[in-house]
Amino acid sequence: MNSFGKLFKIHIYGESHGEALGIILDGVPAGIYIDNNMIYDAISKRKPNRVGTTKRIEEDIPIFTSGILNGYTTGAPIHIMFKNNNIQSKVYKDFKNHPRPGHADFTATQKYKGFNDLRGGGTFSGRLTLPIVVAGTIAKLILKESNLIYRTDIKSLGKLNNFPSKEDIDSYTKEIMLDGDSIGGTVQTIVENIPSSLGEPFFYSVESCLSSILFSIPGIKGVEFGSGFEGVHKLGSQFNDIIITESGKTATNNSGGINGGITNGNPLIISVAVRPTASIFKQQNCYNFSEKKIVPLSIEGRHDVAFILRIPIVIESAIAIGLADLYLCNKSINGV
Amino acid sequence: MNSFGKLFKIHIYGESHGEALGIILDGVPAGIYIDNNMIYDAISKRKPNRVGTTKRIEEDIPIFTSGILNGYTTGAPIHIMFKNNNIQSKVYKDFKNHPRPGHADFTATQKYKGFNDLRGGGTFSGRLTLPIVVAGTIAKLILKESNLIYRTDIKSLGKLNNFPSKEDIDSYTKEIMLDGDSIGGTVQTIVENIPSSLGEPFFYSVESCLSSILFSIPGIKGVEFGSGFEGVHKLGSQFNDIIITESGKTATNNSGGINGGITNGNPLIISVAVRPTASIFKQQNCYNFSEKKIVPLSIEGRHDVAFILRIPIVIESAIAIGLADLYLCNKSINGV
Amino acid sequence: MNSFGKLFKIHIYGESHGEALGIILDGVPAGIYIDNNMIYDAISKRKPNRVGTTKRIEEDIPIFTSGILNGYTTGAPIHIMFKNNNIQSKVYKDFKNHPRPGHADFTATQKYKGFNDLRGGGTFSGRLTLPIVVAGTIAKLILKESNLIYRTDIKSLGKLNNFPSKEDIDSYTKEIMLDGDSIGGTVQTIVENIPSSLGEPFFYSVESCLSSILFSIPGIKGVEFGSGFEGVHKLGSQFNDIIITESGKTATNNSGGINGGITNGNPLIISVAVRPTASIFKQQNCYNFSEKKIVPLSIEGRHDVAFILRIPIVIESAIAIGLADLYLCNKSINGV
Amino acid sequence: MNSFGKLFKIHIYGESHGEALGIILDGVPAGIYIDNNMIYDAISKRKPNRVGTTKRIEEDIPIFTSGILNGYTTGAPIHIMFKNNNIQSKVYKDFKNHPRPGHADFTATQKYKGFNDLRGGGTFSGRLTLPIVVAGTIAKLILKESNLIYRTDIKSLGKLNNFPSKEDIDSYTKEIMLDGDSIGGTVQTIVENIPSSLGEPFFYSVESCLSSILFSIPGIKGVEFGSGFEGVHKLGSQFNDIIITESGKTATNNSGGINGGITNGNPLIISVAVRPTASIFKQQNCYNFSEKKIVPLSIEGRHDVAFILRIPIVIESAIAIGLADLYLCNKSINGV
Repeated sequence: MNSFGKLFKIHIYGESHGEALGIILDGVPAGIYIDNNMIYDAISKRKPNRVGTTKRIEEDIPIFTSGILNGYTTGAPIHIMFKNNNIQSKVYKDFKNHPRPGHADFTATQKYKGFNDLRGGGTFSGRLTLPIVVAGTIAKLILKESNLIYRTDIKSLGKLNNFPSKEDIDSYTKEIMLDGDSIGGTVQTIVENIPSSLGEPFFYSVESCLSSILFSIPGIKGVEFGSGFEGVHKLGSQFNDIIITESGKTATNNSGGINGGITNGNPLIISVAVRPTASIFKQQNCYNFSEKKIVPLSIEGRHDVAFILRIPIVIESAIAIGLADLYLCNKSINGV
Repeated sequence: MNSFGKLFKIHIYGESHGEALGIILDGVPAGIYIDNNMIYDAISKRKPNRVGTTKRIEEDIPIFTSGILNGYTTGAPIHIMFKNNNIQSKVYKDFKNHPRPGHADFTATQKYKGFNDLRGGGTFSGRLTLPIVVAGTIAKLILKESNLIYRTDIKSLGKLNNFPSKEDIDSYTKEIMLDGDSIGGTVQTIVENIPSSLGEPFFYSVESCLSSILFSIPGIKGVEFGSGFEGVHKLGSQFNDIIITESGKTATNNSGGINGGITNGNPLIISVAVRPTASIFKQQNCYNFSEKKIVPLSIEGRHDVAFILRIPIVIESAIAIGLADLYLCNKSINGV
Repeated sequence: MNSFGKLFKIHIYGESHGEALGIILDGVPAGIYIDNNMIYDAISKRKPNRVGTTKRIEEDIPIFTSGILNGYTTGAPIHIMFKNNNIQSKVYKDFKNHPRPGHADFTATQKYKGFNDLRGGGTFSGRLTLPIVVAGTIAKLILKESNLIYRTDIKSLGKLNNFPSKEDIDSYTKEIMLDGDSIGGTVQTIVENIPSSLGEPFFYSVESCLSSILFSIPGIKGVEFGSGFEGVHKLGSQFNDIIITESGKTATNNSGGINGGITNGNPLIISVAVRPTASIFKQQNCYNFSEKKIVPLSIEGRHDVAFILRIPIVIESAIAIGLADLYLCNKSINGV
Repeated sequence: MNSFGKLFKIHIYGESHGEALGIILDGVPAGIYIDNNMIYDAISKRKPNRVGTTKRIEEDIPIFTSGILNGYTTGAPIHIMFKNNNIQSKVYKDFKNHPRPGHADFTATQKYKGFNDLRGGGTFSGRLTLPIVVAGTIAKLILKESNLIYRTDIKSLGKLNNFPSKEDIDSYTKEIMLDGDSIGGTVQTIVENIPSSLGEPFFYSVESCLSSILFSIPGIKGVEFGSGFEGVHKLGSQFNDIIITESGKTATNNSGGINGGITNGNPLIISVAVRPTASIFKQQNCYNFSEKKIVPLSIEGRHDVAFILRIPIVIESAIAIGLADLYLCNKSINGV
């Protein structure tokens, strides 16, 4: 179940505090130049380098073991691995007994009958979004000739709405941090220059494909396209996007560039709801299963006050992965 | 691409105005009693039997050709077919040239190079949700012993919010209908008695699985779990659901019964955004590709003013299908 | 599990004595002209129209319900159905208690706990190869521009070897029929004009793909490529096929046109072992599970003395299906 | 395409002369004790430690990075990696121009347009069977409680038939080696204590599943079950296996323990044809594409005279992988 995609397939593995984590990319055409700078740029965007992000600093150096020769893809599966170095696992030992609220501690322990590795969140950790970022960069290279333009922004953060400024974000995050609490928000991605005809009817619609991978990212609680949950309150005569040019450009874009599950060539618009970080320093209650009672808990360790600040590149990468798969699917069957 | 599921698999076919449409169900365990009344009940909930729904009346009689013997499933694939009878295709002939706003006319014609069947929306028609309803009913029978309780309601309709009453819905819909316009809204499903441990980490999380099938339904523009897009504005200390009993019951349910992509035994809460019906009688603009200009369009034919009124059972069925698949996946690997 | 293929996907359903059987074809590109004569020709090759074949005569009329408009594929899933008419089910009623030797009566009854439909062999019947033949014909149309040439022949039949003549086959089959016994043999298919580069490394090699679908056909017990089981006794210096022209033509073809799981442009050579028909009139023993003893059995009913005589078109069709899928896979990723 | 399995899934990567090769195992239930001795035993059976095997000695130490904690599986994906150390790549540089007969040099270079890595055979190397052996061992542990017994033997080697003795094998191989040539043969695996009910009708029959993975192993040219290609010359009355006990034991086993694609509880019998090693020291011809003429070639480097001597554990492992997947599939749907 740990795979995504139909032609551009990715397979992920690893845990937060295990020896390593990584990804296999399958179906990457031969002869694609792998731009290392682009990969390092993407990785750096995910790094905790601003107010409100974790103090666990990892080098995040991708080790390419297979599928690339002299800088070009060979057509064979690509394997990329990251080592875990900066690990402090002691604090996690008791979370099978009193699971942290909002975490997978309880569900994973139930599902895997206690054999699960929950150090650092184990395989449920946000750290597994690191290989997604590399895969997303390679996905962008598959679609390079389409000149897609991605714009991904924080649309709201806690009480801040309407694409808050960097200054507002920093000061608000600092305030929350000092209170030992955490915040979430929403992230919007717009993709321009998207080819039409991507997406397959019914079960592999653009929305099905992209929501499926977006909801794989830990902490995502909603996905909407175009005008989304707010737009559905419009009347049909207001919602319908009218084509105004021969190339298919529409006057409005309530549908987010998708009709019938297929791209129409207008910009793709996707918004994602990101829950506040589950781990908080602030004291909260939790259930102690051996003592069979509710007890107070204050979570030590290093964690993001607002992991949403690190997630835009992850969301963008997930979308790129989905689009690369849809592109190859359409190419094979419908001949682009 | 026209399949959904990993163990409980469904494969769909058909067009709105073709001879028939249907579905194959694969992976249904042998020995399940198929309750015809339950199936007819579900089908009738999807019927256009209230204010604001289409005048195309179809008998919607399921023809079971395979996989069932003496009322019980045999373990072989189940095939169910519906014939199309009440068809009026004339009005559709020109929509490749001047595609209807909000429909798949433009994208399907591009993707399939004009070979697509767009009579009645072709394979993009809401009529394809009919076999989904039957599949959903059988999915519920797979999980029968869990005694799941589904509650699905219209949460908002156009300008009406907070679960409007049947009377308010009818009078508002009538008003819109008289104006020749259309409306959408949101639908919420709550599933109680859900077993814990459903869902697989990362790419087949409960959210990934369910959103993927929900976004296959024509006209869905958003999917959220728990407190969704609104909830992400809460602080972490407000959002975290605290376990209060040994069985894992939580005081709140912002996460919608899911942590780390796995069910925690609390009720599943899912909301879906449904766009207003694309076809409207009211005059709107569209683009005429042979004349290369914008022209007025008033769509004749029989269509729903608010197909959202017929969609709750479809959404519930899609969720049931996803849950049956997650249940079988978990059973195979983790032994329930 | 009842599906085959990665891009050109087929999903099958039906039983020998149920109401109908059929197939969904998914991933067929839009705009392919469906040649009905070619389909009827293929169906007729599978018919029991010679010495030693069953007296159950079915009309075998394909009903195309979806995915084709005005003779051309639309890009939507194609559904084809066949009705069962000429059914005599009475003789099958006791085979759960004393399963017929060589049939799936015992295994299916165990697996499905007695809920299986074993009338006529149920879903294990050779009748399910009928939709395979139609799918194979459409697969050939997908690859039409490659001008593939298929030659499929009976290589051996019972004691007859070296591609026996039609006269020898008929007289030998008649002899076996009079004795109430049955025969099998081997079938060879050669495909010429095959493009190079089909096949994916490791798990979707040409051999993996084709053997997988060939072994789905009831009664197949062996599959070999090139010089197969006999050829492996050659020395390496004898076995290696030496390229002799710039186009890649080889002097010999021990590898059957495949190196490293990928076609090399030389003719594909595949041989298949077909067991003798399990149902025989001649008295044999079987186990009576209620009486817990071995009892004599003489199988009445209508069956082929040598279903191998009807199987060449089925084998050829299965190969065509596999090749169409490999062709689309290669096209999507490697750009043909 | 580089994946195998439906529930117990494996994903492979790596090249012969790249930095590393490895495998992800997905779907392994939590709580399985990983017996390192069993894994090292299996790896050692694949080692070149007898007459006629390569001089390239690799340490073959498995690095377990993920999915195992304190010796037990956690339910998360398992990743196992091997480093390549003992590499001599110089000899391979010209094989894109004059491909080695019988190798994938020509087909891979065509398919991947020259971007392929063919050092040591690249991703087509027999070295990729190393992770298969580890996966197979873990597959056996999944089925541990069934107490399956595997017996895998060389059935024939070049001119030697009827399960030749170790002495005969060694002296014959030495003779061939001195002549600079190579040999192949056939390998037989028998699996006892196999549960009944494994296998799914039609496209995931036991034969389809096992042949599919067996033909992924480089150099396999034939797969047969039970009495295979020779058995099909028997009459039906001779071929049919008669049940003689209440447990389903049959008097003969021509069908190799499988009826209708489903195991019947009798021993599984599988034979595999293994081609002679393609690389030979003896001078042979090859085609030089830049000079456009046939030229002589003598392949230096370290290679097996008879890689069949190292392949039995690989074949046994591939079968174990397939059986583990079939076991989990059957468990999920049919409840074992």
